[in-house]
Amino acid sequence: MDTSLPHVVVVGAGFGGLRAVNSLRKAPVRVTLVDRRNYHLFQPFLYQVATSGLGPSDIAQPVRAILRNQRNFDFRVTNVEGVDLAAKKLQTESGEIPYDYLVLAIGGQTNYFGNSKLAQHSFGLKDLDDAIRIRNHLLYMFEQAIHEPNPELRRALLTFVIVGGGPTGVECAGAFSELIRLVLIKDYPGLNIKDVRVVLLEAGDKLLSMLPGRLQEAAAQTLWKKYIEVRFGASVADFDGRCVTLKGGERIPSHTMVWAAGVRAAELAATLGLPTDRMGRIQVEKTLQLPGHPEVFAVGDAACMEGQSLPMVAPAAIQEGEVAARNIVRLLHQQPLQEFRYRDKGSLATIGRNAAVASLGKLQFRGWFAWAMWLAVHIVFLIGFRNRLLVLINWTWDYFFYDRPIRLIMHDGNCPWGRCLRQASQDGAPARK
Amino acid sequence: MDTSLPHVVVVGAGFGGLRAVNSLRKAPVRVTLVDRRNYHLFQPFLYQVATSGLGPSDIAQPVRAILRNQRNFDFRVTNVEGVDLAAKKLQTESGEIPYDYLVLAIGGQTNYFGNSKLAQHSFGLKDLDDAIRIRNHLLYMFEQAIHEPNPELRRALLTFVIVGGGPTGVECAGAFSELIRLVLIKDYPGLNIKDVRVVLLEAGDKLLSMLPGRLQEAAAQTLWKKYIEVRFGASVADFDGRCVTLKGGERIPSHTMVWAAGVRAAELAATLGLPTDRMGRIQVEKTLQLPGHPEVFAVGDAACMEGQSLPMVAPAAIQEGEVAARNIVRLLHQQPLQEFRYRDKGSLATIGRNAAVASLGKLQFRGWFAWAMWLAVHIVFLIGFRNRLLVLINWTWDYFFYDRPIRLIMHDGNCPWGRCLRQASQDGAPARK
Repeated sequence: MDTSLPHVVVVGAGFGGLRAVNSLRKAPVRVTLVDRRNYHLFQPFLYQVATSGLGPSDIAQPVRAILRNQRNFDFRVTNVEGVDLAAKKLQTESGEIPYDYLVLAIGGQTNYFGNSKLAQHSFGLKDLDDAIRIRNHLLYMFEQAIHEPNPELRRALLTFVIVGGGPTGVECAGAFSELIRLVLIKDYPGLNIKDVRVVLLEAGDKLLSMLPGRLQEAAAQTLWKKYIEVRFGASVADFDGRCVTLKGGERIPSHTMVWAAGVRAAELAATLGLPTDRMGRIQVEKTLQLPGHPEVFAVGDAACMEGQSLPMVAPAAIQEGEVAARNIVRLLHQQPLQEFRYRDKGSLATIGRNAAVASLGKLQFRGWFAWAMWLAVHIVFLIGFRNRLLVLINWTWDYFFYDRPIRLIMHDGNCPWGRCLRQASQDGAPARK
Repeated sequence: MDTSLPHVVVVGAGFGGLRAVNSLRKAPVRVTLVDRRNYHLFQPFLYQVATSGLGPSDIAQPVRAILRNQRNFDFRVTNVEGVDLAAKKLQTESGEIPYDYLVLAIGGQTNYFGNSKLAQHSFGLKDLDDAIRIRNHLLYMFEQAIHEPNPELRRALLTFVIVGGGPTGVECAGAFSELIRLVLIKDYPGLNIKDVRVVLLEAGDKLLSMLPGRLQEAAAQTLWKKYIEVRFGASVADFDGRCVTLKGGERIPSHTMVWAAGVRAAELAATLGLPTDRMGRIQVEKTLQLPGHPEVFAVGDAACMEGQSLPMVAPAAIQEGEVAARNIVRLLHQQPLQEFRYRDKGSLATIGRNAAVASLGKLQFRGWFAWAMWLAVHIVFLIGFRNRLLVLINWTWDYFFYDRPIRLIMHDGNCPWGRCLRQASQDGAPARK
């Protein structure tokens, strides 16, 4: 690569970062993408990995494979520790990387709103580790419950609480219910399905707030028909790994809580010494530039803008990544910059087999057709033809055989099976990170 | 289940254990299978996971899914800590399990012949953790090397040493070479392939000793043509994570050593207080019973027999599992027991694309035909139609597109990416378990 060209560094290989890199493929720059993982993750399908429907490699694609044909591209797998905005240098675990232009597409993380006890005992659902941890734990609960003579404890082991009525919570609850009622019931012939509870807790009084009211109602009804207890006005006060306590004092004995009630910007955003919103997102100009640092852009879950609400979803990140790349080229050519305007193309959420809700402009869909649309849209956006093929095969298999083939309890360092079991026999439940 | 029926406990859901359980499906007994994992692992394909060709879930099948239709079957996921042969009780992490009959199908583990330094720094290849650890490490070496200015260090990062000329070592070396030369070379356009070495060390003077001499020669030649340095008479004296030292004093700078030079029985075999051979295997009678304990059988990698050599391979374990089950039924009916006799159906080993060696009775094959045969045999023995389908799709994909799609560096607890990197920047290489 021609090292005399301006150096654009993009941090994060998520939807926004990848799009920014790709949009610079013909620009007179050299591009370095930095990520702590060597793969791009299709986050919308994480709940599928958590519920044994897909394997990790079905929703992850190596970055080098995606960008193999881009000539002006280099990739570094490393942890970014900070940015020296004055010196225009990225500080990473494997040394400094100087830049001329910087795109921060650092993404988001689970938001526990400062409640460290929740963070300790519940599961987030933001990366592959989270998803595999949930899969291990859920299957482990069944292995425990099936040999548990105490009925109270058995019901607590089989009560799964999901917090948050957004798309992640709704999709996760639907998938939990189907995994249990369509698949695990066959694995555990001794299981009494009446011992099983899937509870979705929403602090407000509606699910999927980005959708029109009629679809919100439809989603709640569909969940209820799948035997998911949908609870509105239910705020979590505490969870100790054994029992969920609500703000009103109600207690739900449960060993499993998935926390899908909030997202905030990744840690790095807070280290820049710049103004952030309550989700920790960096305030950017209308051009996506950092105030006072016209060579630095922020996009995706880590950026917010005055006068315009930027939803923390993939389409927003993609649109922002593209505009940031375009504005870098305009800076190079000393042209006026483009202001970012989010185009909402609609919202989709799936609740399970044949059931989804979709809103596209003025059109609203529900049921089978919305579900087929959800499937088509997501398959198209999944990167890599092979991944699309394998996901379709897995889903076709699940659909016709009522099976979730990847019911594997894998060792992972945070909860190796042995340690889980030892801990469990000591105090009744597995250790979690 | 009728609890008045005799209770047969089978330890281990490998090839031998599964066959024993399955062979008892119509016997008047209740069967409990115990394993610390909830899945059966197709070990012959572990090297495929290690080299990004298959995902973990392609070669693992949940035990409950496999044995779903067996009525007299129960399953416990737990660690077995010991056997009280006198009291007829299994000691596990989640309590005692009494038995009337016991089948020990506890399998094998990597044999470092007591060299703890080798165990610390090299990789075994006996379970999924091992395979994912190798995959992570191998890809990580390339990520390191591509940005390493020091040519000596870069070549050490790109030198991959595999120890042991048995099927695992040979298949692993072939797969390493193809992953690097057909796939990674495209991911790393800045890579100089001349910096890469794949070295196969064999202490004796032949590979694949179970095969006839002509096929041994063919295998060595094929490996050599794939640019694998095959070294005979090369015994490893030491490895510190940076450099392999041979017994003769020769030093090979390398950060990667896969130890495929030996297998021994699982730990549990040593705790029984019974005579074992030098591989730690339990001496069994010709009927597969433990001497002095006619109600206990041992099969597979953890059993050895006087007067008959039992190879530590899947077909032997399967045959033994079946005979053990049959002998339990004979004991129940007070019939004379069957003596075990191993029927060698032949040997196969693959070296890569279109290349394998096979010996079936007096017939010998090599090249494309042996490779197709290897493929067919292994696909047939892989459990689960869906797994067979996905493996075939993955391989067809690899075959035509020269791709290994699962090039993902996953966090695993033993070597989280961050820790790897920090460690590496401190002392030049990642921490390993």
